[in-house]
Parts: sequence; C-alpha cells; structure tokens
Amino acid sequence: MELSDLFTPALILDRGRLEANCEAMRERCRRLGVGLRPHMKTLKSIDAARIAIDPEHGGIAVSTLKEAEYFAGHGIEDIQVAVCLTPDKLERAAGVARSIPRFSFFVDSAEAARAIAAAAMPFRVWIEIDSGEHRTGVAADGGALLEIANAFKGSRAFLAGVATHGGHSYRARSAEAITVIAEQEREAVVLAASRLRQAGFDVPGVSAGSTPTAVHARSGDGLTELRPGVYMAGDLFQAAIGSLARGDIAVSVLATVISHDRARGHLIVDAGGLALSKDRSTAALAGGDMGYGLVVDLDGEPAFGDLVVGGVHQEHGEVPVAHSALFDLLPVGARIRILPNHVCMTTAAYDRYRVVDGGHHIIDEWEKTAGW
Amino acid sequence: MELSDLFTPALILDRGRLEANCEAMRERCRRLGVGLRPHMKTLKSIDAARIAIDPEHGGIAVSTLKEAEYFAGHGIEDIQVAVCLTPDKLERAAGVARSIPRFSFFVDSAEAARAIAAAAMPFRVWIEIDSGEHRTGVAADGGALLEIANAFKGSRAFLAGVATHGGHSYRARSAEAITVIAEQEREAVVLAASRLRQAGFDVPGVSAGSTPTAVHARSGDGLTELRPGVYMAGDLFQAAIGSLARGDIAVSVLATVISHDRARGHLIVDAGGLALSKDRSTAALAGGDMGYGLVVDLDGEPAFGDLVVGGVHQEHGEVPVAHSALFDLLPVGARIRILPNHVCMTTAAYDRYRVVDGGHHIIDEWEKTAGW
Repeated sequence: MELSDLFTPALILDRGRLEANCEAMRERCRRLGVGLRPHMKTLKSIDAARIAIDPEHGGIAVSTLKEAEYFAGHGIEDIQVAVCLTPDKLERAAGVARSIPRFSFFVDSAEAARAIAAAAMPFRVWIEIDSGEHRTGVAADGGALLEIANAFKGSRAFLAGVATHGGHSYRARSAEAITVIAEQEREAVVLAASRLRQAGFDVPGVSAGSTPTAVHARSGDGLTELRPGVYMAGDLFQAAIGSLARGDIAVSVLATVISHDRARGHLIVDAGGLALSKDRSTAALAGGDMGYGLVVDLDGEPAFGDLVVGGVHQEHGEVPVAHSALFDLLPVGARIRILPNHVCMTTAAYDRYRVVDGGHHIIDEWEKTAGW
Repeated sequence: MELSDLFTPALILDRGRLEANCEAMRERCRRLGVGLRPHMKTLKSIDAARIAIDPEHGGIAVSTLKEAEYFAGHGIEDIQVAVCLTPDKLERAAGVARSIPRFSFFVDSAEAARAIAAAAMPFRVWIEIDSGEHRTGVAADGGALLEIANAFKGSRAFLAGVATHGGHSYRARSAEAITVIAEQEREAVVLAASRLRQAGFDVPGVSAGSTPTAVHARSGDGLTELRPGVYMAGDLFQAAIGSLARGDIAVSVLATVISHDRARGHLIVDAGGLALSKDRSTAALAGGDMGYGLVVDLDGEPAFGDLVVGGVHQEHGEVPVAHSALFDLLPVGARIRILPNHVCMTTAAYDRYRVVDGGHHIIDEWEKTAGW
C-alpha cells in the first residue's frame, strides 16, 4: 500500500528517521555517562517505545495515567509519570503500580506528599525541582524539598529520586543559551539530591531533561538519566532551535488538495485545525514563522520551497500560493505531506501511525494511545 | 456521581443549556421560515444530535466522513457532509450513501464534479458557493457554477442544491456587521439557485449558515435551511461576538489544581494544550482576551472574576493569580471548570461527555466520535 492509497488526513511516521533520531540520543547519553528515559508523551506508541528505549536503562516517561496504563499493558516495566499527581488520582495510579515492578510519579507539595504517604501503597515518588522554567517543582535550595521527603518517613511510599524539566530551553535561541539551561537543570537536581542525601535520605534517581537541553548538555555529572521526548519525531520548532535538522523530522500529516482559488492565490487542503493542531510556536521565531506547518511532497522532500499552511479552519487548511505554477503541480486531488510546528500537539488527534521508511510505500501501521 | 468524583481532565456538557440553545435556534429558524440542519462537527454526539434536530426538517450536517458513518450508524437518515469531497474519498462516501436515504456532500470544482459523475453512484451533491469567506466555493455569478451542474447531466449523481458558509462572520464585531454577512450568504445562494433554475436544473435545497449569521439573519427568503453548529455548546468567542450569553455556554473542561507557586503568583491545573486546545481566537477581541479559557467553579458559575488560563504546556495549564486569597480558595486538589475559547477545537480531544443539568451532579454519559 502506498501513501496515495490512504484516506486523508492521516498521520505518517518515517521509521528510518525515528531510528536515527533515537540512536543519536542514545549516543549522546552514552557520551554523557547517563541513562536515557525516553518520554513517550509525543509518540504514545509501544512500537516507537521499543525503538526508543535505552536497553541499559529500560524505563520510559509518560505524561498521563492513561499512557502509563497503555505502556504497562504492553509490557513496559519501568514507567515514570512525569507530572505531579494529586490525591484524587492515587487510586488509579495504584492500579498501574500493582501491575509493573517500577511505577513512579512526581510530587511538588507537602500536602500531596502527605496524601501519598497516607495511601499506604509502596508508591515510588520523584520530587519535582524547579530548575528555572517556573512551571511546577520546588526550589532545590528551599524548605519544601525536605518537608516533602520527610512526609514519606514511616510510610510505605519512598523516594525514587529528584527530577526536573528545563522547559525554558524552548525559549532559548542559541546552542550556547541552551547549554546554560542544561547546566541549570543539572545543578538544580544535583543540589537537591545532595541536600536530601545529607539529611539521610536515599536518592537513587537524579533525572533531568528536555530535548533541547539533552542535545546541548556538556555534562551529565551527578545525573542518572535524561528524559527528552520530542527528539524522536522532531518538528519545525525543534529544527529551528537546533535540536535536529529539518530533514530528520519523522512525523508528518498526509493531506489532499480539495479546492483551488487561483484568483485569490490559495489552495485548500483537508488538514485543518484538528488535523494539524492550532499550535503556532514557530510564530515566535524571527523569520521562521511556518504558519500551521510546512508543505512537502509525498516523499517528504521539500519540493515546494517555503509553501506553508497559512490559515486553518476546523477541517480546512489554507495554503497561500505565490506562483501559479504550483496550482498545476498540485491539482485538486493531489497529495502532500505537512511537517508540524509542534509534533506533540499534532499526534494527539490520531489513533495510529502509517509507517514509511523513506519514500511513500507503507511498511507498517502502529496504533497509539491518546486522551486521559 | 458528582463532578468531584471524576478523573480529570474531563469534558462536561450541561444538558439544560444545550436544550435551551437548541430550542432558541429552532425558534429563530421558525421565525425566518427555514429549516434547521444542525451541524454536528462541534459536539459529534448522537445524544446531542437528537436534541438538536429540527423535527420538521430531520437532517444534520457533518464535517468528516467518519462523522457521517457514526451518525448513519445511529439511525440518522439525512446527512450532509458540508465539505468538498475529492475523488479519492468517493468510495468511502458510497458506503455511507448506500446505508441511508439522504446522504449528500459538497463540490466546488468541475474536475471533482466529473469524477463524481463518473463514479456511477446516485450521489446527492451540493454545489458550494463562496459568499464572501473566500475559503472554498465558486462564485454565485461565475461560469464554474453551471459547468459543475452540467457535469452531472446524464450521470446518476444529481443536485441536492446550493450551499454556502459565511465563515467571515467570525471576523465581524457587531450584530449589524453580522446581519450584513447573513444577507451576503442568503443573496449568494439564492442567486446561484436562481441561475441554475433558469438553466433548467432542479435545485431542491438552498442552504446557508454559520452560528453568528443564523443568530442575526433578518430574512430567510429563498433559503430552505440554515446550518449552524457551534450555537449548541457556545464558547467564549461566540459569547463575545454576541451569538449567545456567556451563561449559555454548555461545554466546559473539568480540571484539578495540581500545583501552587505563591511566590510567582500562579497555580497549575491538569488541563493544558491537549485538554483545552491551543485555540487563541479570543486574542483577537479587543479587551476580551481569555487566554486559553475562563476559570469558573464546579457548578459552572463565574466565581473567580476574570481568572483565565494564561499559558499551556502539553498537560499543564498555568493560571496567573492576582489575589493571594485565590490560593486558599483553590488549594492543590481543588476542582474547577474551564470555559473554552473555541469549543469545536476543545471537544475533539475527548471520547465522551459527562452530562450535568445545572450544578455538579452527573446525570448521564454520552459517547462521541472524533478523528477521521
């Protein structure tokens, strides 16, 4: 079966590019002397996880309990929910915890820690540290860190370690700036681990990571693992900030040209706000605004220059066309692929990947999970 | 079961508000003397369709073939796919066409019309007219209109009618401006119908509509039906442009407070870019920017003033808090509801509605479709 036979819109994954991106990240982690815990929030697929997992380390990260249940059901034995779970989620979490040897999740408040301790389950908990993103997490040098750790004393819950996500790396615009943030991540969790150890706690895991910082980190000293995710697929935003080359992007949306308006100079495709997502992260890139995605050909090659989806409706994407020759090249019914701005947002709308390995021949179909 | 018992994020629908919104739209259409064909692209649920359908008219509109299959499978006998189908989609369309008495879809090019004619199926086709949105559709006064109609001569396909969507009403900011666009819609399809009839074609249907134009139309002369959709649920954008009151919004996202940062003045909820969508349509409203949604209490009441989700990550929403008393009112673990900017984008991420009828007691659960 070929991409031209598929019903559109459809989500396409290039296995060769995925494998190369995964191998490059494993190699970076080997050089840094840390384990790799691939974050599966982007691809949400067991087939992708099997390619991404670091055989020396074994575990994955996820962002929802539904993802945890999905991967546990497919035999993954070390799953970290890299999000703080509030007390109302502990019963569902306990179900996953009973089903695999190493299930863990984040906490960043003493109230939540006391509820976890009271649940009387052998929960493995990472204390989340704020290394500069200022989203969630406690300060590495503040009082809450020890208050949370103390809450577990005498309970069946125990510390898996300390973890941070330097998400502010997405706001950096140079390799040097990202390297600085990678150091902030590392220093924050290493300091937190050291303070806990001085207070007598066992801190087996020291976890950091985002794709940009994992790519540009120069030291892994004191870390046990990195936890990037979007690197597997890549997207236009990650390519623009230097996490990978545009030619490494492994996920795209297959679409069909459904209407021409030669007078006004645009064509319409059947991939709109739901098929691409309304993510506009590339709008923040000086000179690099890709609208709602970059149009490439059926083989994934950049055959049309800077042709982008300029606007979206629910099921329609509008592609402004500067040269009338493009209407002849892309008649009604023509197939294109669209590289996403932010692949984590785009994959969420689909229940499967159609897998290619270069070109447009479909070699496999991978199911994925979504939702909560 | 109560909203406080649900796993979050979850999609909430208020049945009383839905019923009132549907009755108000039916009443408007009665006054205008036109049928109502509710567009189910927003709610994608058979239970909602049963409440929305105009018993005098019977039909619905949808935006994908998957929605058409879903509603046909639930017994709806008149389904209009209000999107142009290209030749590659005709085989799947034929499957739906064989299963119900009145299946129809849009066309806006002579190439596609010739492919439809060649398919040798009794397809019912609406010619899409551009009434000013300039997205898809042919001009009411141009040559393509008759070329498309002529393409069906001698084939088994036939004209269901002419249809338009005045989507540029979303860019209008006053009732008067929307009324003008409603007239543009009406005049465009009435002119197209008249030209086709003069050329000897039977034009049974004359279809127009968007929620804003359906609310503000002053005449239905020459129309057989209106085709709005978002009015059933409403959202912050529709409330801001006057399609309904904010208190009529029937869909919200239930979320839990998962983290506090009193020092920086924000709290974090477990509804982020995937749970709310990244739609920012309210950003275009002078003084009415609602970020990624407005925070209301568990009963759906605006108890917190203008508290909005100011930023989103994949699974985290960040709510800037101006008054520290709100941290006490909304501790970690507290439940809130979030009114969406653009409800069509928000509902797409979920597979079901939890249904309330005022307040926070769950009276039902409705499944819905999604994807393609």
